[in-house]
This record gives sequence, C-alpha cells and structure tokens, in this order.
Amino acid sequence: MDVEIITIGDEIISGHVVDSNASFIAQQLETAGLTVKYRSSVGDSVEQIEEVFRLALKRASLVICTGGLGPTDDDVTKKAIVKVFKRNLIYHEDVLDDIRKRFEKRGVEMPGINQNQALLPQGARFFPNKFGSAVGICIAEEGKIFIALPGVPFEMKQIVTDSVVPYLRSLKTGQALKVVTLRTTGVIESKLAELIKPNLKLPSGVKLAYLPSASGVTLRITATGSDEGEVENKVRDLTRYLESVAGSYIYGRNSDSLESVVGQLLKDNDKTLAVAESCTGGQLGMLITSAAGASSYFLGGLIAYANEIKIDKLGVASEIIEQHGAVSEQCAEAMAVGCRNLFGADYALSITGTAGPEGGTDSKPVGTTFVALASVHGNRIYEYHFASTREFNRTRAAHAALELLRRDILDIT
Amino acid sequence: MDVEIITIGDEIISGHVVDSNASFIAQQLETAGLTVKYRSSVGDSVEQIEEVFRLALKRASLVICTGGLGPTDDDVTKKAIVKVFKRNLIYHEDVLDDIRKRFEKRGVEMPGINQNQALLPQGARFFPNKFGSAVGICIAEEGKIFIALPGVPFEMKQIVTDSVVPYLRSLKTGQALKVVTLRTTGVIESKLAELIKPNLKLPSGVKLAYLPSASGVTLRITATGSDEGEVENKVRDLTRYLESVAGSYIYGRNSDSLESVVGQLLKDNDKTLAVAESCTGGQLGMLITSAAGASSYFLGGLIAYANEIKIDKLGVASEIIEQHGAVSEQCAEAMAVGCRNLFGADYALSITGTAGPEGGTDSKPVGTTFVALASVHGNRIYEYHFASTREFNRTRAAHAALELLRRDILDIT
Repeated sequence: MDVEIITIGDEIISGHVVDSNASFIAQQLETAGLTVKYRSSVGDSVEQIEEVFRLALKRASLVICTGGLGPTDDDVTKKAIVKVFKRNLIYHEDVLDDIRKRFEKRGVEMPGINQNQALLPQGARFFPNKFGSAVGICIAEEGKIFIALPGVPFEMKQIVTDSVVPYLRSLKTGQALKVVTLRTTGVIESKLAELIKPNLKLPSGVKLAYLPSASGVTLRITATGSDEGEVENKVRDLTRYLESVAGSYIYGRNSDSLESVVGQLLKDNDKTLAVAESCTGGQLGMLITSAAGASSYFLGGLIAYANEIKIDKLGVASEIIEQHGAVSEQCAEAMAVGCRNLFGADYALSITGTAGPEGGTDSKPVGTTFVALASVHGNRIYEYHFASTREFNRTRAAHAALELLRRDILDIT
Repeated sequence: MDVEIITIGDEIISGHVVDSNASFIAQQLETAGLTVKYRSSVGDSVEQIEEVFRLALKRASLVICTGGLGPTDDDVTKKAIVKVFKRNLIYHEDVLDDIRKRFEKRGVEMPGINQNQALLPQGARFFPNKFGSAVGICIAEEGKIFIALPGVPFEMKQIVTDSVVPYLRSLKTGQALKVVTLRTTGVIESKLAELIKPNLKLPSGVKLAYLPSASGVTLRITATGSDEGEVENKVRDLTRYLESVAGSYIYGRNSDSLESVVGQLLKDNDKTLAVAESCTGGQLGMLITSAAGASSYFLGGLIAYANEIKIDKLGVASEIIEQHGAVSEQCAEAMAVGCRNLFGADYALSITGTAGPEGGTDSKPVGTTFVALASVHGNRIYEYHFASTREFNRTRAAHAALELLRRDILDIT
C-alpha cells in the first residue's frame, strides 16, 4: 500500500513551526507494517490543498494529512475535502456535545467559533480527539483511504496512537518488516562506527543507521523480507553483534529512555536520588521526573545557580570556589556530597559547567562541564568538553550525569 | 528565485527523527527574502538522492539539502553530488587540519574514519562547521546554486546562520516581504480569535496565522507586495490593531521568549528570583536559565518532589498537606513563601500539580496545577486545569508561572 503524508499550513512551508507531524505519523505507520513513499507540504490555500489532495489520491492508496482543522479562518482543510470528495458538511450534534463538555471540564465557556468544528463531511468516520475540539476525519472510497487530522502535535499524536494505527493494523501487507533501535549515550558516532565496522556483516535486506542527537547516538536496524522468521533472525543476529562490540554504551532499546532505564535501576535496588544543578538550572531534575512514577526514587534537588547558594545551601567551601572556580572538579564533588547530605539520598548527582554562549576562559572554554556522583561507595567526578550550543551542552550534561549513575549502579567502568 | 529544500536520510522518511531541518532553513531563508516553493525528503540511497537532485535542479534555482555528509557508510550524499555535477572528490588538507584540531580540543583522538570528510568536490565553496567535522558544500553553476549541509541539526543551524544566509543575502529578489510574529501566552486560540475577529480588516497581501504550542499562541503576520514602504505600513497597522484588542496577552515579538522578557523585566527592576517546583521537577528553573545571562537575577531553586522535602526544606506545614493535599492552593502558597525565605529572593514562584498520566482524582483530575508567586507585595495563587500529556502539562505550568510574574511586575490584572 503506497502511503503519502501531507502536512498543511503556511507555518509548515515557511518553517515557522517544525514539521514534526509527518515524522511521527511515518514512525507510527511502521508499527502497522506500512512505509511512507511520498511526503509533501502545502500552505493554507484551499486551491493548493485541493491540488495536493488530488495528486496524492492518484499516486497513493493511503493519504494522511494534518493541519487546517482548527476553528479559525486560516483553517481551510475541510473546504478542500468538500471539493475533492464532493460531500456536504453536516452538523454533528454528538461531536458538538463532546466539544462543549471539554470546555466545561476546564471551567471555560466554549467560544461560539468552536461550533464550526462540529460541521463535518457526510458519511465520514470520526476519530475522537481527547485533547482538543478538532476530531479526525476518515473517508474510505474507491479503494482509497483518506484521513485528515488536526495539526496541533499532541492532539494529532493521541488520535494516531489511539485510533488511526489500530484502524490501519486491520489492513494486511505482504512484506515482513522489523525495526529495532538500540539506544547509546556517551559515545560519538564515529567512535561507535569504529567499534562496529571491522567485523560487521550486513545480510541482504538489512540496514543499519546511526542517528546522533544531543542525548546520544541511536542505532537503528531495519530488516525487510518475505519470510517473517528469517527477518526476525537477521535482526536478532545483528543485535547480538552490536551488543558484543558496543554493549557498554547501549542503555536500552526502542522506546527506552535513559531516565526510565536509570529510574528502573533505582527502583529495583530500592535507592533514592537527589540532584544539585548549576549550569543545567533544573534540566537534570526535569529529565528524571519526565519519567512518570519518578516519585518512588527521586526526592528532589537544589538548583544552585548563584555561587552563594552553592556555599549556603550545599555547604561548598567558599575556598573551593575562590581557588578552583565554580566550574571545577572540586566544586562538582562538594556539590554532590552536600546534596546527598541535604536530601538524605542514597545517590546525589551534581553538574557545574560553562554552558555558553558567554563565560568561557582559555583554560575552561565554553562546554567545560564537571559531573559528580556521591554515594555510600564514595565519589566519582568526570570532566567533559561539550562543543555545542547552550541548549545542547546542557542536554548533554544532564544525560552524562544520568549515564554516570547508570554505569555506577551496573558497575561498568 | 524558486527554492527547494531536500532532507536526506532513512531516518527522515521513516520518521525516526523529526525533520526540523527543512523548517529551520525555510525560516532562515525568509530573513534573506526567499520563500520556499518545494519540499521533499529522500532515503539514504545514492540513486534516489541523485534522482531527487536532478529534479530539484530542473525546477528550482536554489537547492539546499541536508544530511548524508557524515563519516559512516550510510552517508552517501557526496556520491550523488559527484554523479550529478560530474566533479571529482579532492583531498582538502586544510579541512582535515580543522577536523583534527576539533578533536584535539576535545581531548579525543580523531578516528581514522573522519578522514573521509576532507574528501570534497572539486571547485566547490566550503562553509565551515564549528561544531562538527562535515563542512557545508556549495556549488554554483549554470545559474543554479546547490548547497549541501550536514544533517545534525545544531551543526546545520550554525552553518546556515553564519554562512548560508549571509551568502544568499547578496542575491536580490524583487518582492518585498515582511513577517512579524506576536507572542501570546495564557489564552487559547479560539478565545484569541474571538477578541481579534470582530473588527479585523485584512488588507490585500496580508495574512494572519494563529500558531498554537504548549508555551502559547503565536500570531504571525505575513505581508507581501511590490512596495516596501506599503508592506511595512500594512504590518504596522495590523500590529497596532492586535495590540489594541489582545495586548495584555502579548508578551513579546519575533525571537522574544517569555523567559527572556521576564528576565529583562527583573534586570530592569534590579530584582532577584527563586523557584520551588514539584510536578515540573526543575523545568521552570531550566526555562529561566535557558536565557543566557540569567545569573544576574536568578538565584536558584528547590525541586521539592517528595512531600518531606516540601515540609523539611520549604517549611510547608505538614497539616497543609494532610488537610488539603500537596496539590492545593495552600501548598502552592506555602511553597512560594518558604522558597522566598530560603533563597532570600525578591520574587519566588512555586508550582505544584498533577502532571499525569497517573495520580488524578475526581476533585483534582490530571492537569490540575497551582502556581503561586510570593513577593514583598504579598502572594498570588492561580489554579489551572491543563488537559494534555505529562510533557505539555508541565510545559504549560512553567510558562503559566513566568506569565504570572510578568503580569505582576507590569501590574496587569
């Protein structure tokens, strides 16, 4: 089944918002055994949308578009649907009821303009929207499936996950497909390639991709073939090989995140964690608590941005800051030790560094970061030299801290 | 000048990474007066890339592609360039020197595989890469400009900003274009439309778009025309109108962020800020410190995730938590007051809520969040009902807290 994804909106084509929707949908379709063949974007013009829809319905049998279903004037997708499919818009009382209830629940009166969103194409199937008032629209006719979704990412995601994928899973495809991702951190792409490449043998139908990001490099194995068992075996063999040459950097698979893996380790060992953050300003705490259920191991943290806070609240000796600076091995260690005492936690992680863009010196350029771990077994301190933007330096520091804890708990040197 | 952006990589077409590059480039091109006409994506196959390059060079006069310039085997963009432009790859000693120095600076030995990245097309212009080893490649011939950039977003961004845009600015276009964005927060899209719509008159050539995100709704005005002065006037008039009907929600323009605007207000008033966070786990602190220079007004914060930390470190009375729960007006207020005392700050913000997905009750469903501000003028507490995912509920809470402070400082009710 040939699939086309169309993202709609002036803000997409002009780049004023990132087009994350097409990527999300492509990835979700993969779990239904569908691979995307065409991708395109179009602005908020009825004529252009209509043109793109007609082309897509000619060259693809499944067309999924996002955007332009909102209540305001620049939302014109439904007008294009009416023209292409020659269907009237019908007032759907049950959909309006749902929209009204949503607003009531939030204690907000429904603006009159939202009534538009209950006007929907005749004979279509609707996918409910838990987080907003634009429902998903699905029209199946003449062997083609057309699905229109709202453009607000978290609304679209919920509809795709809860409704679109289950609906599409019922459609069979002939090709077996298996995708496994291995998540690594603390190692750069080229180093990873040097570990992997010498003895790598990729069987036919198998691809290996390196996907670097600020949180680490993901290794993605994609295997296709006519026989499902054979595809599974090829993926398993390659996974084993990758684990044998780069296993210590691999913290998880597929949807695993470093914070969920570390959280599970803390839970399994019945240990608690606290953090002390300078340059990351709370990002490490945020990362840890982005895993739901973190309250069972995460006590809290101190954002010690000003030096006086490091001294007064964490007990860092003012001599350390005078002699070595706040960005130093000594300060990181004292912050971790002080944090562990303050919160009474089993483990305490600290971060201090120069995130940039200002504040670098010759001996400690922007990106210099110290991460420390204090535990009953003693203290470990590492020095990093991240060479990126403020945002990425901070993200890397937060992940380096969690990775330090993971390696400590698992006794990886 | 017709522009096409091509994003390359299996990870893009399959959705395994978000294609943020095309959006970033489109937006940056706008500042050079260039609008994107075509957008496409292609996987890591030399033949397919070659095909897409040939089509793009036929229908567009400026082609910018990203991805596939890395050192590993799945990076094949240069092979396609060689085929399409019939140019040899030449070994560039100066480029290799730069790459080697980058690794030295980080205290890492350059993996041999990175030598590949100094093999570059003959007669091309190169754009330096500050953060990585893949330089940008620019080939201009027969009235066409072709630019290839690395796919790692922060590397690509640096090259676009520092080299590509300055280079393209030298190319003239006939059409005047002006884009202004007004940043709002604390108001939903449909409410904003109800304020704006009744007396809105859009002159010809002017578009108004509503761009909702977790941090607020951005209003984007785009105006085009042949006369620059006329275009400027139309944008100015519409901006004034929007400010007259929705001014209290507008915190800034264009690249302004809520954290930078609030930071500037604190600087201007010579005031300090501290935070106490429960459900956001550090996100508010991270947001505040994502503005470089935050150290002049931000002292630090306490991540009070566990209730004992709220009681022990912030001095929240245990009776408050017993009687009203940790997610309550009373607890939020006590956290803010305790935080202000603990850090000796002029302003203290606190957040406590149920971010989800678990933990909601009938009286306090997931998304219920209390935000409090303590200052010398007294305390202000607000209750919110966010109705989204954990990630978005937390982002909204952090922005709601900053907006509360902005309105307090500016005396907006």
